[in-house]
Amino acid sequence: MSDQKSPVDFYFDFSSPYGYFASLHIEKLAAQYGRTVNWRAILLGPVFKTMNIAPIANVPLKGDYARHDMERSARFHNILFRHPDVMPIATQHAARAVLWVQQNDAARAVNLIHAIYSAYFTENIDISKLETVIRIAGDNGIDAGKLSTALNDDTVKEALKTEVAASIERGVFGSPFVIVDGESFWGFDRFDQLEAFLKSGKI
Amino acid sequence: MSDQKSPVDFYFDFSSPYGYFASLHIEKLAAQYGRTVNWRAILLGPVFKTMNIAPIANVPLKGDYARHDMERSARFHNILFRHPDVMPIATQHAARAVLWVQQNDAARAVNLIHAIYSAYFTENIDISKLETVIRIAGDNGIDAGKLSTALNDDTVKEALKTEVAASIERGVFGSPFVIVDGESFWGFDRFDQLEAFLKSGKI
Repeated sequence: MSDQKSPVDFYFDFSSPYGYFASLHIEKLAAQYGRTVNWRAILLGPVFKTMNIAPIANVPLKGDYARHDMERSARFHNILFRHPDVMPIATQHAARAVLWVQQNDAARAVNLIHAIYSAYFTENIDISKLETVIRIAGDNGIDAGKLSTALNDDTVKEALKTEVAASIERGVFGSPFVIVDGESFWGFDRFDQLEAFLKSGKI
Repeated sequence: MSDQKSPVDFYFDFSSPYGYFASLHIEKLAAQYGRTVNWRAILLGPVFKTMNIAPIANVPLKGDYARHDMERSARFHNILFRHPDVMPIATQHAARAVLWVQQNDAARAVNLIHAIYSAYFTENIDISKLETVIRIAGDNGIDAGKLSTALNDDTVKEALKTEVAASIERGVFGSPFVIVDGESFWGFDRFDQLEAFLKSGKI
């Protein structure tokens, strides 16, 4: 047995602004306490179906507040943010692309995650489109042709389905959602408690 | 015109643990920035109906996490907390009692709020019962006979209905919910942003 600490499982949906905010902090936070990050792109659609709830933007009253809260939270945390014109969007192409790249090059996959999030939440680029995901991947040194073939193959589709089902099985129901040493934290606004846990090993 | 700053509107439901947590911090926070607190007991039932959502404890996946999060958040913030056996509960008697006491003695009403919250969230006392609310009020120096008469009268029932309708009109959809100078903050986990706003007048 080594002293190696287990990695932090970081679940996120590319349609989630708080997932985006958290994606900018999780690596530094984990590294500060000797951890690496397992980036786990998921889809919240199936989870919301299980929970019988609607995406926050579509809930009366809450939707208006949510938009204001996103913009204010971004300012509060000094995060570059532009509310996309369309939200939520379908994110299966983006999630599958990440999953495929992760099989070959974990570091490049992390760059791709940041690039996709940044495109959607700072440049208002519609990342729901397959060709957009492939273009962003290409810009980040990923073989666009190979990725395109992979995204049209059932293997990666099944792999994402399996990953999403496994996340629901673990109790993941939102984005961002962090699991470390069996402890679950939902939301960027639980990063203070996550940090306390990483620091002392209990909370 | 005086330099008097407008009070902080603090909306809460007695069934809300995060409302309880926030109730222990809001006075000190407001006072620190020269504000007083308008305590506004509401009922989330009608709001949830408008939003077409279920109380958090009843949502699949989220419910289990919610209980864990309440207990962990209480520890994190050094707040005495015991998860009540029954949650959520009906809180109209408690809210009406507060509304009635506020008409006569605002300071005593604040004491009553703390006493009811404490009974429910630290002593597992079922505050949904009319006689329990009256007993707690009596223990806090409120005339139990007069309160009992008032709670059986339609006046206070109508007053609470009006208050709840007005809160929905203002966009209140959760507990705790703070409005100050037109800026809204939902959740105890937005108290960091609330503080930043109180401090600098913008956010």
